[in-house]
Amino acid sequence: MGNLPKLLYPTSLKLDISSLEGFSVDLIPYDVKAPFPDQATDAEMLVTWSNSRDNLKEAAGRLGNLRWAQSLSAGANEIQSAGFASNVILASGSGLHDHTVAEHTLGLLLNSARRFYEMRDYQVQTKWPAHLGGPQPDRPANSFTTLRDANVLIWGFGNIARALTPSLKLLGARVRGVARHAGVREGVEVFTENELPDLLPGTDVLVMILPGSASTKHALSTERLKMMPKHGWVVNVGRGMNVDEEALCAALDKGDIGGAALDVFSTEPLPAASPLWKARNLILSPHAAGGRPQGAEELIAHNLRKFRAGQQLKNII
Amino acid sequence: MGNLPKLLYPTSLKLDISSLEGFSVDLIPYDVKAPFPDQATDAEMLVTWSNSRDNLKEAAGRLGNLRWAQSLSAGANEIQSAGFASNVILASGSGLHDHTVAEHTLGLLLNSARRFYEMRDYQVQTKWPAHLGGPQPDRPANSFTTLRDANVLIWGFGNIARALTPSLKLLGARVRGVARHAGVREGVEVFTENELPDLLPGTDVLVMILPGSASTKHALSTERLKMMPKHGWVVNVGRGMNVDEEALCAALDKGDIGGAALDVFSTEPLPAASPLWKARNLILSPHAAGGRPQGAEELIAHNLRKFRAGQQLKNII
Ligand SMILES: NC(=O)c1ccc[n+]([C@@H]2O[C@H](COP(=O)([O-])OP(=O)(O)OC[C@H]3O[C@@H](n4cnc5c(N)ncnc54)[C@H](OP(=O)(O)O)[C@@H]3O)[C@@H](O)[C@H]2O)c1
Ligand SMILES: NC(=O)c1ccc[n+]([C@@H]2O[C@H](COP(=O)([O-])OP(=O)(O)OC[C@H]3O[C@@H](n4cnc5c(N)ncnc54)[C@H](OP(=O)(O)O)[C@@H]3O)[C@@H](O)[C@H]2O)c1
Repeated sequence: MGNLPKLLYPTSLKLDISSLEGFSVDLIPYDVKAPFPDQATDAEMLVTWSNSRDNLKEAAGRLGNLRWAQSLSAGANEIQSAGFASNVILASGSGLHDHTVAEHTLGLLLNSARRFYEMRDYQVQTKWPAHLGGPQPDRPANSFTTLRDANVLIWGFGNIARALTPSLKLLGARVRGVARHAGVREGVEVFTENELPDLLPGTDVLVMILPGSASTKHALSTERLKMMPKHGWVVNVGRGMNVDEEALCAALDKGDIGGAALDVFSTEPLPAASPLWKARNLILSPHAAGGRPQGAEELIAHNLRKFRAGQQLKNII
Repeated sequence: MGNLPKLLYPTSLKLDISSLEGFSVDLIPYDVKAPFPDQATDAEMLVTWSNSRDNLKEAAGRLGNLRWAQSLSAGANEIQSAGFASNVILASGSGLHDHTVAEHTLGLLLNSARRFYEMRDYQVQTKWPAHLGGPQPDRPANSFTTLRDANVLIWGFGNIARALTPSLKLLGARVRGVARHAGVREGVEVFTENELPDLLPGTDVLVMILPGSASTKHALSTERLKMMPKHGWVVNVGRGMNVDEEALCAALDKGDIGGAALDVFSTEPLPAASPLWKARNLILSPHAAGGRPQGAEELIAHNLRKFRAGQQLKNII
């Protein structure tokens, strides 16, 4: 076995390693929060999941033979910023979190529309939230009370958006998308950011599923928040840096938008001093949408085969 | 117009009355919380929505020519118990609440699985609910953390269940049903209550959408709660009387079941003295699932035509 190229796989999640056998590589488990053992430092291939910053720094500095780092995270910001040499192929886990993030996003959307967070505030005070139950007007104008006939705009229309869309459509929402490239994807009309001034005013709920990068920083700015209707909600499950949190807080507290459900924050855990904690109609979720890669073995096996064959890998960053 | 039969319609919701024209009936609006005006007391037809108890009592006692009472509520318990003469045809609004109740139920299911209620309790204390976010085990055994691969049992498999099922399936749930009659409905295997001892132990979440009647009272009893697994959740959007609330409270607090999300209660509003308010993992929703009939005009027009033709009405109780 000594001559086989080494693939390091993380013990931070349960992987079915038997499904990775048969590639003539040496499969070596490693602890993502600890220094690498000496016999691992000549590895060519590294799979990462919830690694500590120190561990990744060591990987970038000490694994001199490394040629491929496969993150199981969809964003993969951590391996992008770890400082790997330029001859290391970096690949993300985009696709492994589609189901989980789509489900959580749907939950946040229904929590927003049906105001479960407000019901909870009443419940803990032994108060019946009468205004939220009983006979209600059906789909009143200028409100976000249901996904039925709601205008949902998904900004960042990639794998997760594709997984979310069928559920939204089934509940009767009208879905549109924003991405770098315009066109129709899975029956959804996708626009570029240039169209936001036309799209945002008619949006009942904006769902942000953008990756975090220099080009997406503060994508949701004061200016764009101003384009939203007063009842419009913002749901962000992409990256916290994509929202100008100060501007969002101001918009919430002034009632310029209806509310916001955030799973991601520019700093996580959210610092105690952040005004977001107590902002009006702000639903906080602790980066809980994904965090459970599904189908990781298939992606690793696929990219391992491509890597060994010298072919193009999936999800290259 | 004096000789035309009269149909009284409620002003407690916005109805498109023009869609009810052309039937040679006199369409008369009435206030559901007030006594009937004299010129309404010879009406043959009455549509009800969120009527006061007094108003319905008066309708039963004073509208001597009444032959058809059409409730817009799916349960229609209020017209059943109002004391109408036996020659009055009673019809419910079953079908008008499918979308709204299905959506709310889905929201309660995701609130339960994703624990948004617990996140809220942390948020209001400016505490980051770290244990609910970040890397998590994927679909661990004996837990209800996602609808994907969850065993969902819908007890009361009628119109609302049919509307809910596609969303559950799309999210990857395994759906089975319980009703009075067994068989396959829309691809879902439906069993009778006799099979509950076999079904409940393997149920991750039990969704109750039963009507309230003598035969469904305390359907979820101590004995049946005991059949559920420790992680199993109960969601009730049918009628509160169908759950033995004392038994449920005990099961929650002893940890015999995972949690419960209730939209309906044996007494509403829930009395301040009820232990349910503070029961462990109890999500309270104030009878907020439905309350917004959709498509009421079509149902009224359909039944009006049938009534005038002396034919069988839809939704007869
Ligand atoms: N909250 C969580 O737990 C969690 C879990 C997983 C992932 N995420 C986040 O979700 C993000 C999206 O994941 P995904 O798998 O759906 O990614 P994806 O398939 O790569 O899709 C990304 C989408 O964003 C668009 N986009 C990228 N850069 C953009 C820019 N500068 N301006 C406008 N649009 C831009 C892309 O446009 P084109 O299609 O035109 O290229 C694409 O539609 C991840 O990057 C990660 O940050 C969060
Ligand atoms: N929370 C809310 O806001 C809200 C709103 C609307 C309705 N609801 C409640 O939801 C209930 C169901 O509505 P729906 O429109 O779906 O009604 P539905 O179409 O009449 O369906 C009722 C289902 O319950 C089953 N069932 C009736 N009696 C039963 C019994 N004794 N034992 C076992 N199963 C029994 C029926 O079985 P079969 O199919 O075999 O006959 C049927 O599957 C309503 O009656 C109402 O109480 C609540």
